[in-house]
Amino acid sequence: MLSAAQIKHLTSLQLKKYRQKYAEFVIEGGKILAEALQEGVEVKAVIATPEQLDKCRLLAGNIPVLEADEKQMKNISSMSEPPGILAWCSMRKASEMQQPDGWQLALDGIRDPGNLGTIIRTADWFGVRNILLSEDCADIYNPKTLQSSMGSMFRCSIIQGTLTDLLRKANKPVFAAAADGDSMDQLRTASGVLVIGSESHGISEEVKRVCDHSVAIPGDGRTESLNAAVAAGILLYGMVN
Amino acid sequence: MLSAAQIKHLTSLQLKKYRQKYAEFVIEGGKILAEALQEGVEVKAVIATPEQLDKCRLLAGNIPVLEADEKQMKNISSMSEPPGILAWCSMRKASEMQQPDGWQLALDGIRDPGNLGTIIRTADWFGVRNILLSEDCADIYNPKTLQSSMGSMFRCSIIQGTLTDLLRKANKPVFAAAADGDSMDQLRTASGVLVIGSESHGISEEVKRVCDHSVAIPGDGRTESLNAAVAAGILLYGMVN
Repeated sequence: MLSAAQIKHLTSLQLKKYRQKYAEFVIEGGKILAEALQEGVEVKAVIATPEQLDKCRLLAGNIPVLEADEKQMKNISSMSEPPGILAWCSMRKASEMQQPDGWQLALDGIRDPGNLGTIIRTADWFGVRNILLSEDCADIYNPKTLQSSMGSMFRCSIIQGTLTDLLRKANKPVFAAAADGDSMDQLRTASGVLVIGSESHGISEEVKRVCDHSVAIPGDGRTESLNAAVAAGILLYGMVN
Repeated sequence: MLSAAQIKHLTSLQLKKYRQKYAEFVIEGGKILAEALQEGVEVKAVIATPEQLDKCRLLAGNIPVLEADEKQMKNISSMSEPPGILAWCSMRKASEMQQPDGWQLALDGIRDPGNLGTIIRTADWFGVRNILLSEDCADIYNPKTLQSSMGSMFRCSIIQGTLTDLLRKANKPVFAAAADGDSMDQLRTASGVLVIGSESHGISEEVKRVCDHSVAIPGDGRTESLNAAVAAGILLYGMVN
């Protein structure tokens, strides 16, 4: 069974402060655990309710599997209906996974964890796996981000920091997604960075100043804006097709 | 001030059963109210907290504006932080707004109200405003659908019913969005119906049988699926560009 200290530690990982302090995070569910293992994420232990123990032992190989009763699982889980499988993982450095060629995606101020996860999942679909995030994007290890990214997060190299610095370092043409931008045909180039801002505030002024070009998604003009994840999907499609 | 009977009636409209019984629904916030008025939605009354009264009287023109205190507003609102502006509206018949030409979008089993609203907003962006919904899609008058559609709902003609019947009546080539589908180039035709299924279950077997073609979004194959709203956005883009 889990010790009181383990429960306390795992529960603390629901907060960004402690995830950063320990460089650890938690994922929940068998499917995302399988993806994490496949992508080489370092799993320190798997915690399972009695009915999920056998399944977890099969999945986990040499990784320790600890039993938790329903009440303990409810404590350490961030979900209203815990799937009964929780994995305690170590973060890895994004720099260990850099792919310097091709397109990169940069996100400016995407604060909604679900939207952030959906965008990461979409970028992964199109093979755009180098992702830059502004400081004020949601935390990629937030349980909701992990859930909506559906394992895509583990296949991407994601760096969060001062976006203007990251864009300068990328040393590639930078394209801003903007309602008044130019043709999407510009995205048919071999490499660059595409910047997407938040739905409510768009791209910040500082970031705009380091952008070289702007692109817009053509529409018939009666709607004000698109959801940020939908816009990202359409621009990523335009980039690789 | 609002009467007890009015409060009871408006609160009942949070439930689909009563929305259907009275053919009425509620929207919240000044921006969506302005869009509803602009698109000719029949607003029976606007309810406002004291500090929003003047703004609402300006917006509402000849429509009665009723005052509600904070407590009453909390009761009739479906939001955790009510914006203080709520409009009591009548549904209109989708058939009053039919545009028989061009592309139509059909949604099969999109149960998440937020996702449904986002898809409607995206279709509106691309000018695809004839939308068919299966019976098991979320309710378009659900407050979350209305919120995420951001007024696009009022510009679209949306019919919910038995999707196989609706597709047969459309009398156009039907394209199913499917992971193993053919090229998106097929969407460069003048008209047709594009069917999008749910993320978890795809398109149902009965609906698949009335589809003539299938289309897939090209990816690099390492991700299992795309979010339904993102997929809809990319296919709609492919349709009109």
